[in-house]
Amino acid sequence: MLYFDCDYNNGMHPAILRRLGETNGTYTATYGYDAFSASAKERIREACGDPTADVFFLAGGTQTNSVVIDCLLKPWQGVVSAVTGHINVHEAGAVEYTGHKVFALPEHDGRISPHELEALVSGIQADETFEHMSDPALVYISFPSETGTLYTAGELADIHAVCRKYGLKLFVDGARLGYGLAADGNDVTLKYLAEHCDAFYIGGTKVGAICGEAVVFPRGGAPEHFFTRIKQHGALLAKGRLVGLQFDTLFTDGLYMQIGRHADALAMRLRDIFGRYGLSEPASSSRTNQQFFILEHRVIEALRKEVCFEKWAPVDASHDMVRFVTSWATKAEDVDALEELIKKL
Amino acid sequence: MLYFDCDYNNGMHPAILRRLGETNGTYTATYGYDAFSASAKERIREACGDPTADVFFLAGGTQTNSVVIDCLLKPWQGVVSAVTGHINVHEAGAVEYTGHKVFALPEHDGRISPHELEALVSGIQADETFEHMSDPALVYISFPSETGTLYTAGELADIHAVCRKYGLKLFVDGARLGYGLAADGNDVTLKYLAEHCDAFYIGGTKVGAICGEAVVFPRGGAPEHFFTRIKQHGALLAKGRLVGLQFDTLFTDGLYMQIGRHADALAMRLRDIFGRYGLSEPASSSRTNQQFFILEHRVIEALRKEVCFEKWAPVDASHDMVRFVTSWATKAEDVDALEELIKKL
Amino acid sequence: MLYFDCDYNNGMHPAILRRLGETNGTYTATYGYDAFSASAKERIREACGDPTADVFFLAGGTQTNSVVIDCLLKPWQGVVSAVTGHINVHEAGAVEYTGHKVFALPEHDGRISPHELEALVSGIQADETFEHMSDPALVYISFPSETGTLYTAGELADIHAVCRKYGLKLFVDGARLGYGLAADGNDVTLKYLAEHCDAFYIGGTKVGAICGEAVVFPRGGAPEHFFTRIKQHGALLAKGRLVGLQFDTLFTDGLYMQIGRHADALAMRLRDIFGRYGLSEPASSSRTNQQFFILEHRVIEALRKEVCFEKWAPVDASHDMVRFVTSWATKAEDVDALEELIKKL
Amino acid sequence: MLYFDCDYNNGMHPAILRRLGETNGTYTATYGYDAFSASAKERIREACGDPTADVFFLAGGTQTNSVVIDCLLKPWQGVVSAVTGHINVHEAGAVEYTGHKVFALPEHDGRISPHELEALVSGIQADETFEHMSDPALVYISFPSETGTLYTAGELADIHAVCRKYGLKLFVDGARLGYGLAADGNDVTLKYLAEHCDAFYIGGTKVGAICGEAVVFPRGGAPEHFFTRIKQHGALLAKGRLVGLQFDTLFTDGLYMQIGRHADALAMRLRDIFGRYGLSEPASSSRTNQQFFILEHRVIEALRKEVCFEKWAPVDASHDMVRFVTSWATKAEDVDALEELIKKL
Repeated sequence: MLYFDCDYNNGMHPAILRRLGETNGTYTATYGYDAFSASAKERIREACGDPTADVFFLAGGTQTNSVVIDCLLKPWQGVVSAVTGHINVHEAGAVEYTGHKVFALPEHDGRISPHELEALVSGIQADETFEHMSDPALVYISFPSETGTLYTAGELADIHAVCRKYGLKLFVDGARLGYGLAADGNDVTLKYLAEHCDAFYIGGTKVGAICGEAVVFPRGGAPEHFFTRIKQHGALLAKGRLVGLQFDTLFTDGLYMQIGRHADALAMRLRDIFGRYGLSEPASSSRTNQQFFILEHRVIEALRKEVCFEKWAPVDASHDMVRFVTSWATKAEDVDALEELIKKL
Repeated sequence: MLYFDCDYNNGMHPAILRRLGETNGTYTATYGYDAFSASAKERIREACGDPTADVFFLAGGTQTNSVVIDCLLKPWQGVVSAVTGHINVHEAGAVEYTGHKVFALPEHDGRISPHELEALVSGIQADETFEHMSDPALVYISFPSETGTLYTAGELADIHAVCRKYGLKLFVDGARLGYGLAADGNDVTLKYLAEHCDAFYIGGTKVGAICGEAVVFPRGGAPEHFFTRIKQHGALLAKGRLVGLQFDTLFTDGLYMQIGRHADALAMRLRDIFGRYGLSEPASSSRTNQQFFILEHRVIEALRKEVCFEKWAPVDASHDMVRFVTSWATKAEDVDALEELIKKL
Repeated sequence: MLYFDCDYNNGMHPAILRRLGETNGTYTATYGYDAFSASAKERIREACGDPTADVFFLAGGTQTNSVVIDCLLKPWQGVVSAVTGHINVHEAGAVEYTGHKVFALPEHDGRISPHELEALVSGIQADETFEHMSDPALVYISFPSETGTLYTAGELADIHAVCRKYGLKLFVDGARLGYGLAADGNDVTLKYLAEHCDAFYIGGTKVGAICGEAVVFPRGGAPEHFFTRIKQHGALLAKGRLVGLQFDTLFTDGLYMQIGRHADALAMRLRDIFGRYGLSEPASSSRTNQQFFILEHRVIEALRKEVCFEKWAPVDASHDMVRFVTSWATKAEDVDALEELIKKL
Repeated sequence: MLYFDCDYNNGMHPAILRRLGETNGTYTATYGYDAFSASAKERIREACGDPTADVFFLAGGTQTNSVVIDCLLKPWQGVVSAVTGHINVHEAGAVEYTGHKVFALPEHDGRISPHELEALVSGIQADETFEHMSDPALVYISFPSETGTLYTAGELADIHAVCRKYGLKLFVDGARLGYGLAADGNDVTLKYLAEHCDAFYIGGTKVGAICGEAVVFPRGGAPEHFFTRIKQHGALLAKGRLVGLQFDTLFTDGLYMQIGRHADALAMRLRDIFGRYGLSEPASSSRTNQQFFILEHRVIEALRKEVCFEKWAPVDASHDMVRFVTSWATKAEDVDALEELIKKL
């Protein structure tokens, strides 16, 4: 069986496994005060070009979004997201569960428009009934987006400018950040993110770790008593070393970027193969590890016998949109094998 | 000064004031267990044609929406509303504050479409990732809507049918219910609401009371331990008699409907006057006590010297949409005086 | 029937009823921006000797406690209360519902001890695991307490001093404040409260109003965006005039204090009568409008035929503790009649 | 340095590390639907003697307490705990953060008394003002307790009987369950827990795992839509295999009990050594892996140069209570070395 169904159907990057083994006998401080976590934080600060950044490690993506958004907002404030944003669709209402409204903006290839953002926010702030309304005080975007697309540096700067103009904060969900940073044509870097965001997270779970995300608050901007609030949310790991060590490894010798490049390159091959054999033009502009195609039902059925992938959405009576995902764990041979299969169809 | 700015800028209907005076010396049970509340509940049950209905009295509209929606939903469920619904715009995120997502549907003249409702709900329920999503389990509509428009009985039945088909509950915000029930051409009655809803409230604050709303759960459908949950939300009045007595009065000798007819008739006169003198065609199809017009800025300025009304939204460089509201407290002479002013313009 | 069961089984003080009638025809601004509320706030500021105090009007006691405590605390903080405090027992967990822990201290005749408060707070602040704990950041006391007892000015100052020393805020629940201020031997004044608290509320519902409490934040100390948070909690009255007008009346010509003195004097007579006829020594040191006695079951049964009062707690096989309450609505003749009844027993 | 400071200052049991390595290359289903988790659940069901038990895996202890308690309770209900219970002291108010009151009972050597439990619950249920109160609907106990002590089977049965009599549920926090089950003199088994509880969790983080706890709801008793609620709480691991595989290993060939026996035996040696050399009688009746001693300050200082352990509480001017903890990772040689050190003192 070939696995292109998602990027967290695998274990952990071998380099991480190795270090887990090497360090297993070591005693450490708990709750993230261990030396592995300290080292990882230092490496991340360096990669972000911000020696003052606050870095915290959490276990998963929805948890990170939920805790960070709750703590960046005051209790009466809300967060703006694309209507397709992960927090608006696939987190079981976790943001609302902590008491905050999600303001949904239209999506354009997975992204929000700075103009529509400005229209929303300026409209609410200018409204005479403003004090009867939830206050949109934070913008949430995902990079890459839920459909693998990216904001350019210029687009990020535009959104950042709107945020500054109206006093909003900016938070970037980087669950698949490595695949975005490494993408062909991408001009956004960790440093650039650190300069333009109030918070972002560097995804581990989908980029080589067995679990864990690294939250970065540039310029010492962690929310007040953030450690206690992590605990209050049930999100504090007793053995913080587990995530610390993983990020220490991912940020050693460029492993994190190397994983991104590897998966993106294979994804570009998929894109090429599906087109070359006339199966489907790419159904999205994604240059990252998620690729979308529109396939005939009979092709889907034929492929499914030997390939795992996801039906994304129905298109018409005889076609569905499907998603193929590569990861650090995908091998070039897997793509070769897929190509063989497609050739035969 | 003439007051057309809203329907809660006034005191209470004189009949209520009179009864407050007559009963002031009486000792009663507390927390809504008094005889006035019992009588009011009985009258409301009768007006709804449902002797088994559970009736509770709360103090205001946002409170009622917030408490009722929270208690009708389980903690992981959400509520569907028109994007313009009061809960989605003007309640400071009170629904989200209690942990629930608001799913916003497009609005059509203030109303939701049963087809768009069905598309949303069937889509989510059929989604393979359903268990990762907030579950839309309740539909919220306002009658009249925020712009004074009404659902026909047939439209309500259609929404009700979608709710039944997909296992959702239906809740009607009747903050201005009296003005809707009494409107020209309306074919919805309290009995009809009771038959088609899981909960609705009969607005008092905007329809003659000094405060208070009556929540009706037809067929004994009050949420479990609803009294305790009202208390938990800080919404229990120690002197429940205050709201009970008001509804007892409003539902004696047809006062509630009489108030509605009075205000609607004056609103229809406004509609006629603005058209007759060429100031503005009506900007909404409302047949209830809120009327919207598009006026030139210079007209607005001229009128504002002697008339209170609300700017609703900018239209173009020289026009705004404005809102004129009548109520039980509006007198025919007020409309006469407004007509005189307009005639002079 | 004679009514000594509670202080909110009645209507409103006649002076309030009269003013409701006089002002009923007036149009006003909404949501508490009316002239009556403005005047009431001014009078309250003056009575508190603090022209910079922020004053807000809410509908009831549990609501006020819940909203004020939630807004004075940050999300990870908790509130300290006597184990018998209203928020810890009789508010259906409303404080916890907004996410905050209640730390319970032992009660001494309804009051907390500054020493036990200091022990609790200093212990937690010095604890090495402090950041794993809810942070007690606010002290809640009731004046009078739930059993009618009072803190002296000196005791309040001691609690205040502990709060200052450890960075806590102090909030006083004054649901029955009038009966406390007017009590024989009391040396606490509104000015004194304003000097020693971060927030307190002046109870209306139990002291002559039909509903409503006035929250005072001395020295401009209202929580950020408090209006919006009141709305978010469902606690904003559309016709804010209802409570504003009542407090304007209560703070005109000393009415609030006069109500307190009236009820306290009658309560002292009760205390005297029960002792004089050998029925019971007072079971509490209360000098306010709640009086507690220990009566034989047969006396309770005999009295209950003609008198409403509350069984408070069982004492032994043949005795219960009972509560008698006076209010602004209690008449001297009611106490005379009760005395006659007791004389006959 | 010798490490007796806690039981989560280490890595993972070597058997787990080995299996992580062996399975790392395998593709699996996500979110806990993988084969490792399925196998682990089956083994746990078997160990509990309940083939119908629902089993879920979460990441940590506070998270598990918070999610399980929130989901076992209805929104207006509260949980009863010893005043020293982990949820009442060391979880940053996580239970209250989800809206529920914690009712604190006195502790007796870390445990609650069934009689005091019955007094609390029967008192509240019989109270005439019951519907104004939070409803204690769940009992939380920890086994072992926070100070390492255990309930006997008979004591558990007594608490269970009170729960049944008053309609409460019973939840056991088993963060250190293995050390309890294996303790000398313990007569409680997994089967016994399953028969007497509505939910309990088998601690992994402190008993050999790198992270993870297994929640058991006997008799198919998982809360409605529990998967979605885990997600809503931010507690769902994308790679559920991480915890599943660990528990699959811990419940293979009796590893879980073997870890418990190992650590408890070493803890008993500590108990013996401190007494034998006259340093301290044991300060608690714990027969599990946490041992408490009262030491002179100068002894503490001397030991601390070569041994990590925790100061628990001040005792008098010259003594502190200290805690020594063993774990799966403690070696017999560590205890030998400690004995040598003590001998020298």
